[in-house]
Order: sequence, then structure tokens, then C-alpha cells
Amino acid sequence: MGDEIQEYFKHALMVAKEAGERVKTDFYRNKNISVKENFADLVTETDTAVEELIVAKLKQRFPDHKFIGEEAVSAGGHCELTDSPTWIIDPIDGTTNFVHSVPHTCISIGLAVNKEIVAGIVHGPILGETFTAVKGHGAFCNDVKLSVSTIQDLKQGLVIIEGGTSRVPGVLDTKIANLKKVVENCHGIRAYGSAALDMCFVAKGSHEAYVEHGIHVWDIAAGKLIVEEAGGIVCDPSGKLYSLDILYY
Amino acid sequence: MGDEIQEYFKHALMVAKEAGERVKTDFYRNKNISVKENFADLVTETDTAVEELIVAKLKQRFPDHKFIGEEAVSAGGHCELTDSPTWIIDPIDGTTNFVHSVPHTCISIGLAVNKEIVAGIVHGPILGETFTAVKGHGAFCNDVKLSVSTIQDLKQGLVIIEGGTSRVPGVLDTKIANLKKVVENCHGIRAYGSAALDMCFVAKGSHEAYVEHGIHVWDIAAGKLIVEEAGGIVCDPSGKLYSLDILYY
Repeated sequence: MGDEIQEYFKHALMVAKEAGERVKTDFYRNKNISVKENFADLVTETDTAVEELIVAKLKQRFPDHKFIGEEAVSAGGHCELTDSPTWIIDPIDGTTNFVHSVPHTCISIGLAVNKEIVAGIVHGPILGETFTAVKGHGAFCNDVKLSVSTIQDLKQGLVIIEGGTSRVPGVLDTKIANLKKVVENCHGIRAYGSAALDMCFVAKGSHEAYVEHGIHVWDIAAGKLIVEEAGGIVCDPSGKLYSLDILYY
Repeated sequence: MGDEIQEYFKHALMVAKEAGERVKTDFYRNKNISVKENFADLVTETDTAVEELIVAKLKQRFPDHKFIGEEAVSAGGHCELTDSPTWIIDPIDGTTNFVHSVPHTCISIGLAVNKEIVAGIVHGPILGETFTAVKGHGAFCNDVKLSVSTIQDLKQGLVIIEGGTSRVPGVLDTKIANLKKVVENCHGIRAYGSAALDMCFVAKGSHEAYVEHGIHVWDIAAGKLIVEEAGGIVCDPSGKLYSLDILYY
């Protein structure tokens, strides 16, 4: 299986870079924006086109594989994780950044086999940073090996915490209460607006933790493996290690 | 006076770039960190060394000019703004980022004449972005002219709001309450951890606003002019345009 996964990964990396060229071209143009759940939950023509491109290219090479893509699911598509090789795709993570021409935007592609992520790619075409991991082979940024921070004391830590796109009052109140608890106990908080990149920044060791609630599987499928292969952990709010079974779609 | 200001600006830009090389070298090394007001208010040997370098180089060329520098003031130095040409310097804005090897860190140099900022430089040596402005001549990033966003509706805006380094409970509560009001009424919030760069991102038009309380004059002296020369405004919490007289040192 190891060789096959390397083959899947290499092909997906090529596809991610091709998709990145499309994101890059559209980044510098006016965007055609629609809203999803509320005024802050955005999607552009590029999100949809890039997802279609990635799925088509992967399907062509691996016709038996399955797919979970943010935009297909948002449009009412089926979202089911089986034991089959399944590509979990966020064509543009950080769509709000993309819309506002903020560089922190990326393509996230994770591959699950037997409901476990075995390969992950987070490609930031504007930042020029490509984060990758294959299970058991470490995590990398542009081929430089990554390690999480060695700081153990939260008070010495820099923590990423995102506001997210939900504008439901109760949800926001909880997020703000959490944010307060974090900020008063660490060096500072940061918010870059891309869950996948946020996880990679933890993998890189420049930030000690990243906290977010209400995340989708496509936001973190690739990032989860990248953090773990850099020596970090990903857990649910109870502190239990995350498994894909309990991820919120 | 115009020609003189151009001369001051050009020399300061050269000095900022030289100082940037020092910041860049130290960025990739282990840092020697001390705390100032609390565990989250940091200073490194690089902050002090870079401020001394900038002041020495400017003083050598302009012996009659005056100086307000973050680290000199923090160490108990005199902080007075007169009508004389006065260089207002933050050797490393985003010290916490610098400590954690996060790229959003910069050198900020503003020049005040008659208590008005007439030239500003925000040089981000790791990001590779140098923002500049001379009064009446526009704002630039790496020589590309900047314009603020044309979005007027906050609901369509992306807003930067920082947690800052104060850990005083009342201050934090107010900051968090403000943050909540902002996040529920815009596309999203971001926090990059450098006031000077935050202002430049507003000047660039990728973010519609940046909100922060308890800022120091060296954090925003250069950024103020860069925002204004890009067509934006800088105001105090009452909405009144900011003047250097009321800036908090």
C-alpha cells in the first residue's frame, strides 16, 4: 500500500499545483462572489471551478476513488466517508481572504484510506508555500522538514484562534468567551483566516496551538496529518484525539 | 522644505533597509528575550540593537534632528515631540512575531516636522514588503502605488483587530467587547500582530479597517501617513481625526 500512497500523493501534488495556477490568476482579478449560509460565508466561481478541476484530474487517474469536496457538498452533494480511498478537498480554504486579495489562501487536499488520512497537501499559491505529508514520512514545507514548537507553557505560546463565518449569536458568544480565555493566558492571538494554513503554521512551530470550533472535514483533513507528522496532535474540545469519524462535515 | 524632506526620506529608507538586514539575520536565530510590562510584552536584544543602529545612522547625517524611539522610551528615555524634525522609531514592530519567527514583523520609521508626519517607512524584511509615503506624494509598496478599499459597507469588510499585549482584566474585557461588535458586523476579523503592517494592509486595500486601542506613537507614526496617502483616514475612538498631539506615548 505504501508505494501506491506515494503514487497517489505525487499525482495529487501535481494537480494541486496546477489548480494553484488557476487560483493565482483569479486572485489578481475581480471576483464573482455569492453567499452561502450568511453574508460572511462566501463562495466564488473560482472555488467551484478549482474543485471541479481537482476532482476531474484525480478521477481520470484514479477512477475508483471517492471524493468529498466542499463545494459539491454545499451544493447538496453526497458526503460519505467509507474505507475506500477518498479525496477530501477544499478548493480554496480562506475564501474570504481570496475575495479580499489577502495572500493567506490555499488548496487543501487530504487522502483518507480506511477512514484514516494517509496523505495531505496544503498548497498556498500566493504565499509560495506548499505543505505536505505522507503518513509515516514526516511533514514538509517546500521540502524543508517541519517540527512543532517545543514550548510547553501556554503563557509562552502564540495561539491562532479564528472568528469563523458563523454569525449565529450563541455561537459567536461562545467563540468570544473562548478567545478571551486564550488571550489572557498566552503571548498573543493571531487570526489568518485559513484553517488549513493555520494548522500548517502550528506544524511549522511558529505558533503553539490553533483553536477553532465548527470546522468542516475539508478544512482540516490535510492539515491534521501535516500537524501529526510534524510531531503535534489534533484533538476535539474534550481533549480526545480527533478521528475522522467524529469530524463535522 | 519639500526637497529636504525627500532627502531625509531617501536616507531613512537606506537606513531602514540596512536595519532590515540585521532583523533578517536575527530572525532565523535563537532570540534573547526579556519582558517589559508583563509576560506578554516582550523585547529582544535585536530591538535595542536595531534602534541604536537606526538612531546612530540618522544622527550622523542629521545631527540637529530629534528622536523618539520605543526602546529608549521604555528604558526611561525622554519622549517629547517639538516642532523640530523628529524621527519616531519602532525598531521591531511585531516583537512577539519576531520572537516566534512569524514573518509579520517590521521596522517603522516616521518623520514629524511641526508635529505632523511628513514621511513614513514600514519595512518588512521577512515579508519582503516595503511600504513608504512622503506627504503629498502618495503611498507605495515596493514602488507600486497603494489605494484603500472602495468598500463602504462594514458588512462587506475584512477588519483587523488586535488583542495587544495588555493583560489588565478591564482592558482585555473592553477589547473583547469591541471585537465582538466588529466580528458580528463584517466578513471577518484578522490579527497579524504588527500595528504598522496592519495599517499598511488597510492602505493596500485588502482590509477595510484596523481597530486598536492603547497604541503607542511609534507603532503608527509611519503607518498613519501611509494610510492617509493611500486615501484613508486615521481616527481616535470618538471618530475625530487623529493628530500627533493626542497620540499616546
